[in-house]
Amino acid sequence: MHIVKTIKNLRQILHQVRRKGQKIGFVPTMGYFHEGHLSLMRQAKKECDICVVSVYVNPKQFGPKEDLGRYPRDIKRDTMMIKKENVDILFIPSDNVVYPNCYLTYIDVEKISNTLCGQYRPGHFKGVATVVAKLLNMVQPDVLYLGQKDAQQVVVLKTMAADLNFPVGIRVVPTAREKDGLAMSSRNIRLSSQERAQAPVLYKALKDAARHIKAGEGSVSKIIGRIQKTITQYSSGKIQYVACVDADTLEPLKILKGNILIALAVFFGKTRLIDNVIIPIKKSNKVQN
Amino acid sequence: MHIVKTIKNLRQILHQVRRKGQKIGFVPTMGYFHEGHLSLMRQAKKECDICVVSVYVNPKQFGPKEDLGRYPRDIKRDTMMIKKENVDILFIPSDNVVYPNCYLTYIDVEKISNTLCGQYRPGHFKGVATVVAKLLNMVQPDVLYLGQKDAQQVVVLKTMAADLNFPVGIRVVPTAREKDGLAMSSRNIRLSSQERAQAPVLYKALKDAARHIKAGEGSVSKIIGRIQKTITQYSSGKIQYVACVDADTLEPLKILKGNILIALAVFFGKTRLIDNVIIPIKKSNKVQN
Repeated sequence: MHIVKTIKNLRQILHQVRRKGQKIGFVPTMGYFHEGHLSLMRQAKKECDICVVSVYVNPKQFGPKEDLGRYPRDIKRDTMMIKKENVDILFIPSDNVVYPNCYLTYIDVEKISNTLCGQYRPGHFKGVATVVAKLLNMVQPDVLYLGQKDAQQVVVLKTMAADLNFPVGIRVVPTAREKDGLAMSSRNIRLSSQERAQAPVLYKALKDAARHIKAGEGSVSKIIGRIQKTITQYSSGKIQYVACVDADTLEPLKILKGNILIALAVFFGKTRLIDNVIIPIKKSNKVQN
Repeated sequence: MHIVKTIKNLRQILHQVRRKGQKIGFVPTMGYFHEGHLSLMRQAKKECDICVVSVYVNPKQFGPKEDLGRYPRDIKRDTMMIKKENVDILFIPSDNVVYPNCYLTYIDVEKISNTLCGQYRPGHFKGVATVVAKLLNMVQPDVLYLGQKDAQQVVVLKTMAADLNFPVGIRVVPTAREKDGLAMSSRNIRLSSQERAQAPVLYKALKDAARHIKAGEGSVSKIIGRIQKTITQYSSGKIQYVACVDADTLEPLKILKGNILIALAVFFGKTRLIDNVIIPIKKSNKVQN
C-alpha cells in the first residue's frame, strides 16, 4: 500500500495507473474507520483495479461550535485496518496541502444544502462539496464511493458532480449497522454506555415507520409523529429533526409516493447521530383519517 | 474540424485523442471571434496537438440589466473563421446542455470576484468560474488559454483552478489590439463611428500611466487621476472605474511595487469597454510630493 501525503506524489502514482488503463475507485473519508468505511473499500476493490482511500478531517465542513477538535482520529489504527483490505493508495494530506494560504474558492449546491442537516449546520455541505470537488480533481477516479448513512451528503455530491460535469460515476453503498441496528459512525465511540444502549432506537423507529408506510399509512405527519414518539419514549435522545422528503430532491413530501427518504438527527448527550431509510412506494397511499 | 453539440459526443472524440497521448489545448469563448480569440487558438495549436474551442454565451455571467440579449452572435461566421486556424474541435453546447433543469451548483471565488468589474457586476465572476469549471470537466484539457484583456477573469480563473486542484496548466495570451491601440472585443462592433474614434484613448491613457510609473512616479492617486483626466478630456467615455492593484491578488496598491495591474472600465454610450496594462516594478517608486 502506498501511503501518500502530497498531491504531486499522488498524481505521479496515479499517472502510471491510468497509463495502464486501470480503473480507479475512490473512497473519501475522515478516518477513524469502521465497518461502513471498509464496506466502501471492499466494493471499490470488487469493481475497480485500484482503490484509493483519503483520510482528511476537513475543517471547512465543521461549524465554529461543532466537534472538529473532538473528532476521533487514529491514523495508525486506520492504516493497519485498511492494509488488510488491500487498499492500494492511502492519501493523507495535511491542512496546508488541502487549503494553502489565500484559499478562496467554495462550491455551493443551492437549496438541497440548506435543508435537513444543512438547516442546523450552515456551511457544512459547502465544505463537503468543496473538499470532494478538490479530491476528485486530485485523484481523478472512475468511480466515487459514498455511504448511504449520509443521505443528504449523497444527494449534494451527486448533484454537484452532475452539475459540474465531473467525469466520475457514483456508487452508493448501504449503511453498515451494528448487530442491534445502530448505524456505524466514527462518532459512536463517544456515546456513554447508557447512550449506546439506547441509540438503536433510531433505526427501530425508522424501520417501524417503513413498515407502516408499506402497510398503507398515507399521512406524513402521523409517520413523523410515530418516530418522534418512539425516540422520546424509549431513549434520552434529543431530536434535532425527523423529516420525510423526496430521496432525489430532498423536497418535503405531502404525499407518500416515489422514493421516500426518512432522515433524522438526534443528540445523545453531546453526540449527534444521524440515520435514514429509503422506502420506494409506487402508488401513493391514501391518508387514513 | 469536428463540430460538436453534446457532451457525450465531445467526450467520445476526446477519449480517442487522449488514448493517443495527444496534448489538448482549450480556448473557451463566447464567440463572435476577433483577432484576440484567434491568437489564443494559434497559441494552442503551437503548444498542443489538439485545439478545442467552445462557443457558449453563458447566461449566468450576465446580470439582469446587462447585454445578454444584445451580445453579438454569428456562429456561421465564427465557424468559417476558425476552420482557417485548423481548430480541431468546435464545441457549441446549447443552454439545456450546459444548464439542464434543476441546476443548483455554483462556484464562488471569494474576495477577488467582488472587486474591480465584480463590484459593478455582482454574480458575474461566479457565473464565469462556474461555467469554466464545467467546461474544464467536459474537455479535460492539458492547457487552458485565456486572454489578458480580461485581467480579472484571468486572476479569478487561475485562483479557481489552483484552489480546486484542476489538473490543467493556464496560459495567458497578450491582449490583441487594433492598429490604433483599441483592445479587440466582440463588443467593439456596437460602438458608433464617433465612439470608435474616441475609444483608443483608453489604451493611450494606460500607456501614458505606465510610462510615468517606469519614470519613477510613486503616487497611486496621481496615476489614477492622470488616466481619468485623459479619458474625460479626450472622449465622451463615462468612467466606471480606474484602479491600480496587485496583479496577482487584485488588492489595491498603496505603494507602486511588484506586478502592478492598472485596469479600467469605461462606457461609450451603452457599450462597456475594459482594458488594462501590467507594469512590473522591482523597487518601489518614491512618492513625489
